[in-house]
Amino acid sequence: MSAYRELESRFRRMAALGEAAGMLHWDMSVLMPSGGVEARTEQLTALKLTTHEMKTDPALADLLDAAGGEALDGPWQVANLAEMRRIWVHANAVDADLVEAMTRASSACEMVWREARPENDYARVLPYLEEVLNLSCLAASAKAAALDCSPYEALLDEYEAGGRTDRIDDLFADLTDFLPSLLETALGKQSARGDAIMPAGPFDTERQRDLGRSLMGVLGFDFDAGRLDVSLHPFCGGVPGDIRITTRYTEDDFTQSLMGVLHETGHALYEMGLPADWHYQPVGSARGMALHESQSLLIEMQACRSREYLSFAAPLMRETFSGSGPEWEVENLYRLYTHVERSFIRVDADEVTYPAHVIMRYRLERALVDGDLRLADLPGAWNDAMEDLLGIRPPDDRQGCLQDIHWYDGAWGYFPTYTMGAMAAAQLFAAAKAAQPEIPDRIAEGDFMPLVGWMRKNLHAKGSSASTDELMEAATGKPLGADDFKAHLQARYG
Amino acid sequence: MSAYRELESRFRRMAALGEAAGMLHWDMSVLMPSGGVEARTEQLTALKLTTHEMKTDPALADLLDAAGGEALDGPWQVANLAEMRRIWVHANAVDADLVEAMTRASSACEMVWREARPENDYARVLPYLEEVLNLSCLAASAKAAALDCSPYEALLDEYEAGGRTDRIDDLFADLTDFLPSLLETALGKQSARGDAIMPAGPFDTERQRDLGRSLMGVLGFDFDAGRLDVSLHPFCGGVPGDIRITTRYTEDDFTQSLMGVLHETGHALYEMGLPADWHYQPVGSARGMALHESQSLLIEMQACRSREYLSFAAPLMRETFSGSGPEWEVENLYRLYTHVERSFIRVDADEVTYPAHVIMRYRLERALVDGDLRLADLPGAWNDAMEDLLGIRPPDDRQGCLQDIHWYDGAWGYFPTYTMGAMAAAQLFAAAKAAQPEIPDRIAEGDFMPLVGWMRKNLHAKGSSASTDELMEAATGKPLGADDFKAHLQARYG
Repeated sequence: MSAYRELESRFRRMAALGEAAGMLHWDMSVLMPSGGVEARTEQLTALKLTTHEMKTDPALADLLDAAGGEALDGPWQVANLAEMRRIWVHANAVDADLVEAMTRASSACEMVWREARPENDYARVLPYLEEVLNLSCLAASAKAAALDCSPYEALLDEYEAGGRTDRIDDLFADLTDFLPSLLETALGKQSARGDAIMPAGPFDTERQRDLGRSLMGVLGFDFDAGRLDVSLHPFCGGVPGDIRITTRYTEDDFTQSLMGVLHETGHALYEMGLPADWHYQPVGSARGMALHESQSLLIEMQACRSREYLSFAAPLMRETFSGSGPEWEVENLYRLYTHVERSFIRVDADEVTYPAHVIMRYRLERALVDGDLRLADLPGAWNDAMEDLLGIRPPDDRQGCLQDIHWYDGAWGYFPTYTMGAMAAAQLFAAAKAAQPEIPDRIAEGDFMPLVGWMRKNLHAKGSSASTDELMEAATGKPLGADDFKAHLQARYG
Repeated sequence: MSAYRELESRFRRMAALGEAAGMLHWDMSVLMPSGGVEARTEQLTALKLTTHEMKTDPALADLLDAAGGEALDGPWQVANLAEMRRIWVHANAVDADLVEAMTRASSACEMVWREARPENDYARVLPYLEEVLNLSCLAASAKAAALDCSPYEALLDEYEAGGRTDRIDDLFADLTDFLPSLLETALGKQSARGDAIMPAGPFDTERQRDLGRSLMGVLGFDFDAGRLDVSLHPFCGGVPGDIRITTRYTEDDFTQSLMGVLHETGHALYEMGLPADWHYQPVGSARGMALHESQSLLIEMQACRSREYLSFAAPLMRETFSGSGPEWEVENLYRLYTHVERSFIRVDADEVTYPAHVIMRYRLERALVDGDLRLADLPGAWNDAMEDLLGIRPPDDRQGCLQDIHWYDGAWGYFPTYTMGAMAAAQLFAAAKAAQPEIPDRIAEGDFMPLVGWMRKNLHAKGSSASTDELMEAATGKPLGADDFKAHLQARYG
C-alpha cells in the first residue's frame, strides 16, 4: 500500500471515531438522563485520547513525509494530504501534558462561568479564565512556529484554516466605516413607520415543531437523513446521512425558534451536500467555520427574512396557529424579522448590529492573546469597546464580558468567523442570484431548489478541496469581501 | 506502574469504547434515521477494530504474564485479572482474518435471513448459514484449545463463562423428565376452569407507556439514571448510570408489552446494581447471560406473574385504561398471565413449554457444531425434535428453524442460557423468600425493596467476582439446579 493510502485508512478511522463522539455529544445534549454524565465523560475521553494517540503516533509523521514524495492521483488527493498535515500540526505542536491541562482548565473554567454569569461575578471566574488563557497562549505559540503565523492566527486556524489577521482587519475596517450611519438610517426609518406587531401566543409547541419540520422540508432537508429535536442550546450535529439539528420552543413566541430552525437547517444543508466520495477524509469536511456560518446565514438572513420568503411562509404561519389580523400580514412579519436595535447581547442581535459585537470581541481577544490587555482589565475594556462601536454601555458584566461561553471554554479565535460568515453569505447569495435570476421568485413559491442546487454545486460539493478564498473566488468571481454584505444591508435597511 | 495497574488502565479504555458502541447501537435501534446506516456501520466498525487491536496488542500478553507474577491486592483484583485473561483468549485465539470473515458472513446471512424467514425459504439462506457455521466452528476449535474445553463449550463461553455441557445435560435431563406430565396437568386444569377473558382494546399507547413507567418506578428503576423508549425488538442497553430499556406497543393488547417492560426492567436492575467501584473493569460486569436472564425472569416470571403482584397491579391497570368488568379482576389477569399452551414460536411461549424450545435448540446446535447433523437436514431434525419434546410439528420452517435470529447472526451456544436463567431465577427467588419471608406480602403492597435489596446485595454487587455456580452457592447455598424451578412450576401449574 502507498503511504498515501495508508494515511487515508488511518484518517478514515479517526473520522469515524470523531463522528461517534459527535453522536454521543448529540445524545448528551438532547436526551441523556443526568445519571449518565460520568459514564459519558469516560466514553468521550476514551475516544479523544484514542484519536489523539493516532494523530501523535510517530508512524503518522513518517507516512506524511513519505506521501509527500509520492505521485498523487489528482488535486483532491493533494488537498487531502495538505489537510492531513494541518491536522497533524495541530495535534503534534503541543505535548500531551499541555493538551490535558487545557482540557482540564477549560472544563473547570466553563463550570465556574456557568455559575458566575447569573451571579454577575467576573472576579470569581477570573483566575480560571487566566489559567485558560495562559495555557491557550502556550499552545498558540507552539503552533504558530509550526504554522508560520502569529499566535492569534494559530488559534484562529483551528476554526478557519489559513485565516490571517491583516485580511480580517481590512474586512472589518470596511464594516466599521459603513455600519454606524446605516444603523442611524435604519433606526430612523423604523421609528418613522412605527412598531411591528408581535403575534400573541400561546403557540402550541407541537404545532411549532410541525411548522418547523414542514419548512425544513421546503428547504430540502431530508428526514430520512436527519432529525429535528429539542435541546437547551440549539445546534447542528450528526453526520452526513444522519444530520441532527435542535431547537428550543417557548409558547410565548414562535418567531425566534422558527428562525433558529431555519438557521440550523442552513448548516445541515452544507453537511448534507458535502462530497460523499470523500466522507471520512479531511478534504471531505466543511471548509471552516466562516463558510459554515455563511450557509446558516444564507438561509436564515439572506433568504428567509426576505419579503419573498415571508410572502410564502406567512400564510403557513397564520394557518398553523389559526391566526388572524394585521400581525400575520407579510409586511408586518417582514418588519418583525428585520427589526433593528442596539442591544447588549450578541445572540439576540440583528444583522446590522451583530458585526459590532463580533468586531469588539475580535479586537479584545487579539489584545489578550498578544499581551496588550490583561484579563483583569477586560470588563472595562469590554464596556469601552461596546460604547465605542455601538454607543451603549452594559450596566453589568452579565450583559457584558460574561455573556458568551467562548473564551471560558477555551475557544479563542472563533468570533471573527461569525461576521466573515455573514459577509460570505451575502456574497454567495448575490452570485447565486446573478447566475440564476429566478431564485427570489422561486423562493416566493417555496421552491429552494435553484438556490440550494447552486450552493451544492458551487460550494458544498467542494468540501475542503481549496481555501475559503479560493472557494469564494470560484463561486463568486472574487475572494471574500464586504461589498455584497454592505449592499445587502443597504438594500434592506438603508 | 505495576503491570496490573497498566492492565486496568487499558481495560478501562476498552470498556469505555465498548460502552460508546453500546450507546450507538441503542441510538440505531431507537431513533436513527434510515440514512444513517452507512455512517453508523463505519463508526461501529472503527470502535470494534480499535478495541480488537488493543486486545491483540502483543504488549497486552506481556502485561498479563507480568501481572500473574505480581502480588495483587485482594480477591477482586485476582478475579479481575482472570477475566482479563479470558477476554484476551477470546480475542487472540483467532486471527484477524477469521474475525473479519465471521463478521462479514454473519452480516450477510442475517440480511438474507430477514427476507428468507417471511418467505419460508430455508434453502435460500442455507449456503449463507453454512458459511457462518463453518467459520464459527473454525473459531470454536481454535478457542477450545486455548480454553481447554470442547468447541461447543468454547462458543458457550462467550455468553456463559466456564459453562460445561455435562452440567447443562444434567440440568436439562431433570427438566425433560419432569415437564411433560406437568404440562398435561396444567392443560387439564386450564381446560377445566375455562378460558381467561382478554381485556378489549384499543389501549392508548401513551397510557401504556405511563403505566409501564410507573410500574418500573415501583421496581426501583431510577429515571434519572435511565430511560424507557420504543424499538422494534425490545432490549436493555445503556450503561450503569444511564440504563435504557425499550418496548413496543400495540393498541390491541397492553398485557404483552407491559410484561416485556417488567422483563427488561429486571435486566436493568442488575446493571444498575453492579459494583460501581469496578465499573469499566471486566470484574465489574454482569456474570454472564444465564444470570442476566435470571434477573429479567425473576422480575417478570417469578414476581410479576404472581397473584401477589397482580393484586397490586390489577387496580392500576384497570384505572389506567378506565376498565370495568370481570376481565380486570386479579384472578382473571393471573390466569391470563399464566396461560399455558403448546406453540411453535419460542418468544411467545409460556414458562412451562419454554424449556422444550430451548432444550431442542441446544441439542441441535451441539449436533451441528460437533458435525453430527448437517445444516441441510436441519428443518426435518427441528420438526422431529419439536414433535419429540412438545408433541407438535411445525407446518413450515417459518414456524420452525427459521424463527430465531440466533445462528443466522452467528450466535451459537447462546440458547441454553435462557433456561439456565429460568432455573436460576426460581432458585434465587426461593432463597430470597427464605431469607426474607415478607417478600411476597411486600410485593402485594407494591414494595419491591426487600426483594431488590436482597438481590443487589447477594448478586448484583458481586459483578463477575466469582463463577455463576459460586455466586449461586453464595446466594442460595447450592450451585445452579433444577429443583426450585420445578417446585415453582409445580406450585403454579401442577
